[in-house]
Amino acid sequence: MHLSTSPRIRRSPYFESTVAAGATSWTVYNKMLMPTSYGDVKAEYDRLVNGVAMWDVAAERQVQIEGPDADECAQYLSSRDLSSMVEGQGKYVAMCDHAGAILNDPVLLKLSGGRYWFSLADSDMLLWCKAVAAERGFDVKVTEPDVSPLAIQGPKAEDLVAELIGESVRSLKYFWFSETSLDGIPIVVCRSGWSKQGGFELFLQDGARGDELWDRVAEAGRRYDIGPGAPNAIERVESGLLSWGGDTTPDSNPYEALMGRFVNPDIDADFIGKDALAAVAAEGPARLMVGLVIDDDGAGSPMTPVRTPIRRNGEVVGTLSAMVRSPRLHATIGLGQVKAEVVEAGHPVEVDGPSGPATATIRSLPFL
Amino acid sequence: MHLSTSPRIRRSPYFESTVAAGATSWTVYNKMLMPTSYGDVKAEYDRLVNGVAMWDVAAERQVQIEGPDADECAQYLSSRDLSSMVEGQGKYVAMCDHAGAILNDPVLLKLSGGRYWFSLADSDMLLWCKAVAAERGFDVKVTEPDVSPLAIQGPKAEDLVAELIGESVRSLKYFWFSETSLDGIPIVVCRSGWSKQGGFELFLQDGARGDELWDRVAEAGRRYDIGPGAPNAIERVESGLLSWGGDTTPDSNPYEALMGRFVNPDIDADFIGKDALAAVAAEGPARLMVGLVIDDDGAGSPMTPVRTPIRRNGEVVGTLSAMVRSPRLHATIGLGQVKAEVVEAGHPVEVDGPSGPATATIRSLPFL
Repeated sequence: MHLSTSPRIRRSPYFESTVAAGATSWTVYNKMLMPTSYGDVKAEYDRLVNGVAMWDVAAERQVQIEGPDADECAQYLSSRDLSSMVEGQGKYVAMCDHAGAILNDPVLLKLSGGRYWFSLADSDMLLWCKAVAAERGFDVKVTEPDVSPLAIQGPKAEDLVAELIGESVRSLKYFWFSETSLDGIPIVVCRSGWSKQGGFELFLQDGARGDELWDRVAEAGRRYDIGPGAPNAIERVESGLLSWGGDTTPDSNPYEALMGRFVNPDIDADFIGKDALAAVAAEGPARLMVGLVIDDDGAGSPMTPVRTPIRRNGEVVGTLSAMVRSPRLHATIGLGQVKAEVVEAGHPVEVDGPSGPATATIRSLPFL
Repeated sequence: MHLSTSPRIRRSPYFESTVAAGATSWTVYNKMLMPTSYGDVKAEYDRLVNGVAMWDVAAERQVQIEGPDADECAQYLSSRDLSSMVEGQGKYVAMCDHAGAILNDPVLLKLSGGRYWFSLADSDMLLWCKAVAAERGFDVKVTEPDVSPLAIQGPKAEDLVAELIGESVRSLKYFWFSETSLDGIPIVVCRSGWSKQGGFELFLQDGARGDELWDRVAEAGRRYDIGPGAPNAIERVESGLLSWGGDTTPDSNPYEALMGRFVNPDIDADFIGKDALAAVAAEGPARLMVGLVIDDDGAGSPMTPVRTPIRRNGEVVGTLSAMVRSPRLHATIGLGQVKAEVVEAGHPVEVDGPSGPATATIRSLPFL
């Protein structure tokens, strides 16, 4: 499918580098072009699982909250208890609407000076946060800062990032970060990234220096055999990582998306959707995100273009949102939302497999 | 540029029809695929300017506001005086943030039962409107209804739509509409569309019947030699139509975007950004959207991928956001934002033309 470009769709600070590195396909994420492949799906997967890969994920835009009411505002926008959060720490949070539907699943970073960054999935939370802050009268400034993450992912990422930034990165806990620089380029280095293979994200804080940072990482990475890649459709299904807006629908709540352990409707502080989420917690979610092992040897496409129905005895009981062939499991697997009673009963279901109608077994996540 | 598809990026109810009609390129607009061409740019332009074309513009999503406070809420979200607005009427409005920056430039429709639809450009105003309504305590329901516009544009559009819907459509004033049906398919027919060639939009109210509506229009349109098309980059520059997010930047205000006559900071009713907009009105905008006649015979590309600087004596005085070759003007023309003092002085400027650096003359809009 050919994509027309226009100034409406932004380019990342790493754009020229990704073109030079041979990017062959793209998506639009937060109104920004993001590479999805460099033409060799197998090599990209292998690098991520066995080596180290670098990804342009600048499209993970940040919403920055700063000012006297920043703590209260960040908490009001998040359905997770932030009371113990300290500077240098990140947390995976759900942002919900007043009815408890999940609007985004960012990593929230608490920076020096009491600033916060919501590091976003693909929905325009800048609009949401600005409206909430202004209408509620929080004394904060809400902006999209010039911050563009470059992910370094895979089992060899830590050695590479330690070589680039220093040995101290080895002691960073998951989602914790350090505000630092690399050759004078201001960055935040965080132990994070949209894979389960281990790794870091370098949050570039100067959009004019994207290609310089890319080159610096590529050069240092040469002895680790680094190569370009992108958030990987196969690995993310194996790891059960949520794609907000792909696996979720506009009415999904965080319990259905398996984020229940990050939702705290029992805290004293107020946050958006608190009562609605307390009700879901009490009743239990109506649907659950699950893994599916599909009885089909077909290769399928690594990218599932649309959601398809999941059926049991002909009745629709859910939707399938991703389907891939897992090299490590030697199986065709998928992600979907399925009615809770079907999940609990452990019933097999029917899906549209890569080769046609197929039986599927429900599995808890992650697969690996 | 190859676009990867995924369930995160929605498909229009007309998707299968547009593929069957030969769509060759696409954009992502409000997280939905929208065709941008069917492979024959010249034929698509000719049909729009001399005949009649049908466009899948389902990606113009609607935000619906309904409930006891709908009037007050719609006004609070719009910087235009809505006090005289009646059911059946539409108005072109700016939606601004609290600092007066323009967030979207929808057509607002007031429907039966006091409901409103904001028919949107490419920004997620559902998030904005939901946050504002909930935090301000308006007694309204804010939703994205199942509504997907199909545009019929060009000088022969009125004859075709009169044949399809009835002669009464001929008396609709600009942006006025009628809630009706076609072969039992519920639609709203509105005299509107993103061209200056005249035409209508059929707001389909049942996403399951998109292909049926498409076929019905194609069939009735045969004797008018109808063909598929898309919002046309060349015609829109000739006509000086704003592309929000393309021609505007996040800090643009509606005065800069030439929407000043639709902004009413002097009314009694409160709306978001009122004080900031009153200040801009008093001081005058710092920049202005203008037309540019570029001294270059090059064809250029109909799609300008990025904004480029506009200079005067080497100093940056604005940004060029679109550049096309106009078949009717036999000239290379563009759209840009330029500092007000340069516009007022009538100075020539320098741009990156299709064949290299070129002088450009500032022109008021529209060109045609």
